Amino acid sequence: MEEQRRFMKEAIDLARDNVHGKNGGPFGAVVVKDGQIIGRGINQVTTNNDPTAHAEIVAIREACRALNTYSLEGCEIFSSCEPCPMCLGSIYWAGIEKLYYAATKDDAAKADFRDSHIYEEFALPKDKRRIPTIQLMHKEAVKVFDDWSSSDHKIPY
Amino acid sequence: MEEQRRFMKEAIDLARDNVHGKNGGPFGAVVVKDGQIIGRGINQVTTNNDPTAHAEIVAIREACRALNTYSLEGCEIFSSCEPCPMCLGSIYWAGIEKLYYAATKDDAAKADFRDSHIYEEFALPKDKRRIPTIQLMHKEAVKVFDDWSSSDHKIPY
Repeated sequence: MEEQRRFMKEAIDLARDNVHGKNGGPFGAVVVKDGQIIGRGINQVTTNNDPTAHAEIVAIREACRALNTYSLEGCEIFSSCEPCPMCLGSIYWAGIEKLYYAATKDDAAKADFRDSHIYEEFALPKDKRRIPTIQLMHKEAVKVFDDWSSSDHKIPY
Repeated sequence: MEEQRRFMKEAIDLARDNVHGKNGGPFGAVVVKDGQIIGRGINQVTTNNDPTAHAEIVAIREACRALNTYSLEGCEIFSSCEPCPMCLGSIYWAGIEKLYYAATKDDAAKADFRDSHIYEEFALPKDKRRIPTIQLMHKEAVKVFDDWSSSDHKIPY
């Protein structure tokens, strides 16, 4: 676990530097492939005006740029805190194969970062969620999937 | 619903253009505030080598740039397809107040875009998930939250 602790220390150092540098929330993450860090991320929500700029997403985007691919197969991610639902989703879409985390979502909640309500919302039927969710124009949208399925040029991902 | 149908048509047109322009997956989204489209998104996963570049995330980031803020309070999102867990998470973090969708995740699955396994993983305890998930260095990471909580410069989000 010595190597893993080194990568996690880097993620935690990024989180700490982000607080002391007044750049954003207390979160850091690194993506590792073959024993090398290929992407680093800090939380940049408030500095970049981007609610999706959580540490994990920033690290994943940087790692993909480094490898010139949209797939992080064979990679691991080290996050200073258990990922929120958005970031956990991004980890699955990226194809990352192992997740290391340090603080828990309960620790984050104590610092006023609460994502448990988002996890709870996911488990509810759409008509019970806090954000009203309305379906429109189903038939027109399905037609686009038909176009995709019959296209010769599609790149599956 | 006439105005809402107009915005959804725009989202579906973006999705269709994305297929025919060979840019990426068959998904489009628009963010609307006060009756105006302030962000447009198409799926750019394969063209931009970015697994997080789903239509909703691209539209949210564009809307935030347009408003120069990380909060989309007072905004609605129109997505050509029911959002995946990553995108649904981003909609909550952005503070979007209403979600309109057209195709369902079952329609998406028929076109080989499957996110139901991600929703299922979320409901599992961490040690039962497909991606091995390991905790390390808890104490060191909690200390960063203490630094955040005692900082005079933090911007809550």
